[in-house]
Amino acid sequence: MRAARFYAPGDVRIDEIPEPTPKNGQVKIKIGWTGICGSDLHAYLAGIEGGTMPDQKTPHPVTGETLPIVLGHEFSGTIVELGSQVDSKRLAVGQQVCVEPLISCMKSTCGPCSSGTRNICPHASFLGIAGWGGGLSEYIAADQQLVFPLPADLPLEVGAMIEPLAVAWHAVKRSGFTPGSKCLIMGSGPIGLMVLKVLKARGASWIGVSEPSIQRRQMAAEHAADAVFDPRSVDVVAETRKVTHDEGADFVFDCAGIQASLDLAIHAVRPRGTIMNIALWGEKAHIDFMEVLMKEIFITGILGYDRCHEELLEAVAAGKFQGLEKLITRKIGLEDLVEKGIKALITEKDTQIKILVHP
Amino acid sequence: MRAARFYAPGDVRIDEIPEPTPKNGQVKIKIGWTGICGSDLHAYLAGIEGGTMPDQKTPHPVTGETLPIVLGHEFSGTIVELGSQVDSKRLAVGQQVCVEPLISCMKSTCGPCSSGTRNICPHASFLGIAGWGGGLSEYIAADQQLVFPLPADLPLEVGAMIEPLAVAWHAVKRSGFTPGSKCLIMGSGPIGLMVLKVLKARGASWIGVSEPSIQRRQMAAEHAADAVFDPRSVDVVAETRKVTHDEGADFVFDCAGIQASLDLAIHAVRPRGTIMNIALWGEKAHIDFMEVLMKEIFITGILGYDRCHEELLEAVAAGKFQGLEKLITRKIGLEDLVEKGIKALITEKDTQIKILVHP
Ligand SMILES: [Zn+2]
Ligand SMILES: [Zn+2]
Ligand SMILES: [Zn+2]
Ligand SMILES: [Zn+2]
Repeated sequence: MRAARFYAPGDVRIDEIPEPTPKNGQVKIKIGWTGICGSDLHAYLAGIEGGTMPDQKTPHPVTGETLPIVLGHEFSGTIVELGSQVDSKRLAVGQQVCVEPLISCMKSTCGPCSSGTRNICPHASFLGIAGWGGGLSEYIAADQQLVFPLPADLPLEVGAMIEPLAVAWHAVKRSGFTPGSKCLIMGSGPIGLMVLKVLKARGASWIGVSEPSIQRRQMAAEHAADAVFDPRSVDVVAETRKVTHDEGADFVFDCAGIQASLDLAIHAVRPRGTIMNIALWGEKAHIDFMEVLMKEIFITGILGYDRCHEELLEAVAAGKFQGLEKLITRKIGLEDLVEKGIKALITEKDTQIKILVHP
Repeated sequence: MRAARFYAPGDVRIDEIPEPTPKNGQVKIKIGWTGICGSDLHAYLAGIEGGTMPDQKTPHPVTGETLPIVLGHEFSGTIVELGSQVDSKRLAVGQQVCVEPLISCMKSTCGPCSSGTRNICPHASFLGIAGWGGGLSEYIAADQQLVFPLPADLPLEVGAMIEPLAVAWHAVKRSGFTPGSKCLIMGSGPIGLMVLKVLKARGASWIGVSEPSIQRRQMAAEHAADAVFDPRSVDVVAETRKVTHDEGADFVFDCAGIQASLDLAIHAVRPRGTIMNIALWGEKAHIDFMEVLMKEIFITGILGYDRCHEELLEAVAAGKFQGLEKLITRKIGLEDLVEKGIKALITEKDTQIKILVHP
């Protein structure tokens, strides 16, 4: 089968590799669509440090694989084969599914893995980053407990966005969000827009979005943000205070990961409010702890998700999300992955949200 | 009466001023003992910026006072007079009391003041810092709802330490601490030791203390820390992992407020653990948000307290605190405040914990 494999920064090849065979407890999935994630872009530009991705020599501690690895962790598809001991009441050939691509050590001595918080396992990573196949190929074999049937009538294209939506869902959950809260989102790139969709679905009473790019602000407005602000020309803190009885936002979701957004977040959040960091930071931040103390605010962050696909899919099935398909800005074939996919996320970053790849 | 008044950094004078008269709803208290706080020291050395203390010209927005102000916010005493409309079932002449010295705007339009979180009012400050008298004088008149009877037999000396203990109590509460948790304290100066006492009282199952000063480490050990570490010669993170199934501390209380302690806290806290900042920071901190994200940790901080004196005094009365009197390292008269009090906290900082002043 054809698969996009990552060899090194700047070196992604479309290779011919053997189709996977489902092991005990696994299902084989014919990939429908796969989204390109910011982390794929990051890998292409600079590689991924910190142990989530292996290198050419050191195998990943969980998958045992070295580079090259198949890319793609945001994918949907159709079950084409069940391995032995698969629960046939839950999964069947022909079913449309998505996959929670989380990899962790699963050792009984690992606190996170034994307490249902696999994403903070010291060896946590993802299918499509650490090995065991990926969505940018024709087929993948995945463990049945990570495979989730899509709601009836949900297009496979939308199914491919469940994974990034799960990141936003997990972030909103971990923030302590309650319905009726007033929220500010810093940055309306792909992550910020996913957070916007989740906050809408979960009943935020006001959502403001701060974003310097006019195109991205327009997208936030199209996805029903209550207010959009250009932080270079508008006093975002003052505007947020106007709609929050002069207090500040209950929650600020920092989807930008730069110093300016953190500074704004600290000033725009209300006393005892929460700043949730979702973006990957490129450098260290400066923080004035006196501001944290004086307002008794909480600062936290998340990475990935763990077993929230089910409740997210229930919310999708219940119609809580509108217009998810509008987040798809382009569809391409596997052969165009680098030129029209990965590179377009750099050159057209203000207008591209989700580029889906059909392998 | 005699009172220690702050005029400017380096200028604290023992003045003769009129005795206060209790207003409607106030009681007049003859001061027993008053502790010197790190913030008094800070005021003496550099003044206090940020609006909690007025200057010579601009009155404090709540008290309306300008410098000089009477110092001292950690005090106990005996009620000598009740103003009109004081609840005589609760308070009586001759009663030994302590005072919650929190000042806030109390406007109905103020979110914090109207929701029981006065300490995060934008105009929050303290008796003895913003005006309305202070503990470093012979008498004070205080609002009855801020006056709390001390448990029977509690020495007035210990009563003077209820205020700093309330800061630690509030910090432990706001951290989300639950009994049985394993905790690490960064720094065992006065604040760190107060946190140690509270964690003991509230049932921490393990308390480690990281502190470079050998004298301060000894004090932490005397106050029943389970382990004390010199961060310059011991791998505090590794030692903490040893007693926490390789996970890290559930809670880290940063009572040092320096970069090295924050870095250590981030590495020593377990995934999804909490770092609670209590120390006043002198400069901005650097923080690697990737570490926050990867472990999904919470970082927060507190300032002061609000209405936790009552539950703290109940815990004291119930015998949950042992050896509080051992935190008192010196007792002096008002005339020695600067030389044997404030300055000793600088020159003898490794051996002095609480210096009490008898006015
Ligand atoms: Zn991703
Ligand atoms: Zn694990
Ligand atoms: Zn104090
Ligand atoms: Zn107020």
